[in-house]
Amino acid sequence: MRMQYIKRLNSSVTDKKRMKRNKTVIGITMGDPSGIGPEVILKSFYNRFFKKTDIVVIGDFNIMKAAYNLLKISSFRLNRIVRSADACLNPETLNIIDLQAIDMDKFQPCKVNARSGNAAFEYIREAVKLIERNEISAIVTAPLNKEALNLAGHRYQGHTELLASLTGTKDYAMVLYDKKLSVIHVSTHVPLLEAIKGLKRERIEKVIFMAYDFMKMLGNKEPRIAVAGINPHAGEKGLFGSEEIQEITPAVINANMKGINVSGPLSPDTVFLKALNGSYDIVVAMYHDQGHIPVKIMGFSNGVNVTVGLPFIRTSVDHGTAFDIAWQGKAGEGSMVEAVRLALKLAG
Amino acid sequence: MRMQYIKRLNSSVTDKKRMKRNKTVIGITMGDPSGIGPEVILKSFYNRFFKKTDIVVIGDFNIMKAAYNLLKISSFRLNRIVRSADACLNPETLNIIDLQAIDMDKFQPCKVNARSGNAAFEYIREAVKLIERNEISAIVTAPLNKEALNLAGHRYQGHTELLASLTGTKDYAMVLYDKKLSVIHVSTHVPLLEAIKGLKRERIEKVIFMAYDFMKMLGNKEPRIAVAGINPHAGEKGLFGSEEIQEITPAVINANMKGINVSGPLSPDTVFLKALNGSYDIVVAMYHDQGHIPVKIMGFSNGVNVTVGLPFIRTSVDHGTAFDIAWQGKAGEGSMVEAVRLALKLAG
Repeated sequence: MRMQYIKRLNSSVTDKKRMKRNKTVIGITMGDPSGIGPEVILKSFYNRFFKKTDIVVIGDFNIMKAAYNLLKISSFRLNRIVRSADACLNPETLNIIDLQAIDMDKFQPCKVNARSGNAAFEYIREAVKLIERNEISAIVTAPLNKEALNLAGHRYQGHTELLASLTGTKDYAMVLYDKKLSVIHVSTHVPLLEAIKGLKRERIEKVIFMAYDFMKMLGNKEPRIAVAGINPHAGEKGLFGSEEIQEITPAVINANMKGINVSGPLSPDTVFLKALNGSYDIVVAMYHDQGHIPVKIMGFSNGVNVTVGLPFIRTSVDHGTAFDIAWQGKAGEGSMVEAVRLALKLAG
Repeated sequence: MRMQYIKRLNSSVTDKKRMKRNKTVIGITMGDPSGIGPEVILKSFYNRFFKKTDIVVIGDFNIMKAAYNLLKISSFRLNRIVRSADACLNPETLNIIDLQAIDMDKFQPCKVNARSGNAAFEYIREAVKLIERNEISAIVTAPLNKEALNLAGHRYQGHTELLASLTGTKDYAMVLYDKKLSVIHVSTHVPLLEAIKGLKRERIEKVIFMAYDFMKMLGNKEPRIAVAGINPHAGEKGLFGSEEIQEITPAVINANMKGINVSGPLSPDTVFLKALNGSYDIVVAMYHDQGHIPVKIMGFSNGVNVTVGLPFIRTSVDHGTAFDIAWQGKAGEGSMVEAVRLALKLAG
């Protein structure tokens, strides 16, 4: 009986998809070709851990080849493919799904330009198609340049908003992840004035739940979540602002009543140190810089940016295109290695 | 001729005052008696550096004596005085100007209470009188408790606002100082919404100049000042807010034209790391948490809080009354030692 059931399952389309997924394949988008994306991907592939992982790069073969030559790599080869199914998965091969979005004669390294901005967009669009067809298990993104993206006519604030738009996702949030300190943001790329005026208990509660789900996916059985206030000293009982009383506290109470281990609103200037010291697993930050300032000043070189709430796993390096040092072989691959590692953990 | 001139100067009242000042005397206010102030002052006096410094404590002799007994001190004695002129300045004596603001029978350690709040207020008021009479050269403050202060009917946000009020000072600013990272704040204890709405180029420019003066007093010949933006990525050319364009940039340009080495507005999430790494000597933060978050997460245990713009030098520990650990002899004196050290440097 059980055997029959299993056989039936195995023959279903759903299960074939699941089988594909079981063989976790990480799709890395190449990012803006003019930036450091190609070289950090290649450098990452030196990493032992990478060689045990099934990876396809979604980008331009010729660009990857140029970076490969620049870095004088000989320990592995590049394999140009058109479909992920053609990937030759072994430690000596890095597979590139070649979208041919860049004409090499017109390629401008180290510069903001519309062609590269458009190429970065194309890689993302293709990656979303691949993951929707279950050909890849998670998307890891190398950096794109917002200005180049906009020059190419794609009006998005960045990767996160682009992915949300392509998948029709409304409730998503940005996590900055590091083993020592993780932060999730209630708002990100909006003017600070709007972030405060737009603060609503419903959104805060949703973000608390996204923080919970994220930590659970990482294997944390009972995540301890801290919620930051928005005003100095978390408003000091209404003395320095009312958002804590009107919006943040109700959200924390609601989430608590639903069984989440969540504390707050806590004073924004001390909550991050408390989390760093082990009192909490993740902090809910009310706005972009509240979460970014503490993570960035710690100088974690291997930080990862994660979008939670999308219908799939997406992690990203936490650095930009760094045009000032691009195409010189100088860029460090630490953040890319950790982004792939985290994607694997979340997809696994 | 020159001798005559010097003699005349020496006999003038002004010069007598100056002579007093030349003998730099640091006045430490005892802070809220129920908190950790008394014990951190006493512990600091163990410090070699302290013993070479002329110090008077402005507080209650009986409270200091109780803390002295608690700590089982025998290496120096406490000297009860009524005027700073009576101070017996030697390494074996800690002089206490005894205001008798606390009735020991009613003293409540480790608790927010109006009596202690009022006493803390009295110490500050006396310290201001002493410094105005040139009897002390700088004020270093042990922590007071805002709630206790308010319970006693003194409606101030804290030390800074109290000192500004007592001296009729309008233009002052809070500096968080550490050798590795210093930050000055355009606004502090106001709701974040008000901090943004109230952002004005005139105030920002004044704070840039206060940062400059402060660093010059510390012996920095050409201070390099960074000004943070207020919006994500410093507004990204107006995409995420207009305060950078309308208020911050004009202030930076004005200060630059007046010869100050100042850069900005810079992205708030990276400017502090740049300063920490040595690119700038001090950062101008637009609001309380923008400056406090990076300093606090670094966990500098010896941070100092400085009020600049007052008619005299004032430094403070950067911690609170810590009622949870007060009167147990546990509190660390690192911040108090650094606060005195910095006051001496600024007054010298």
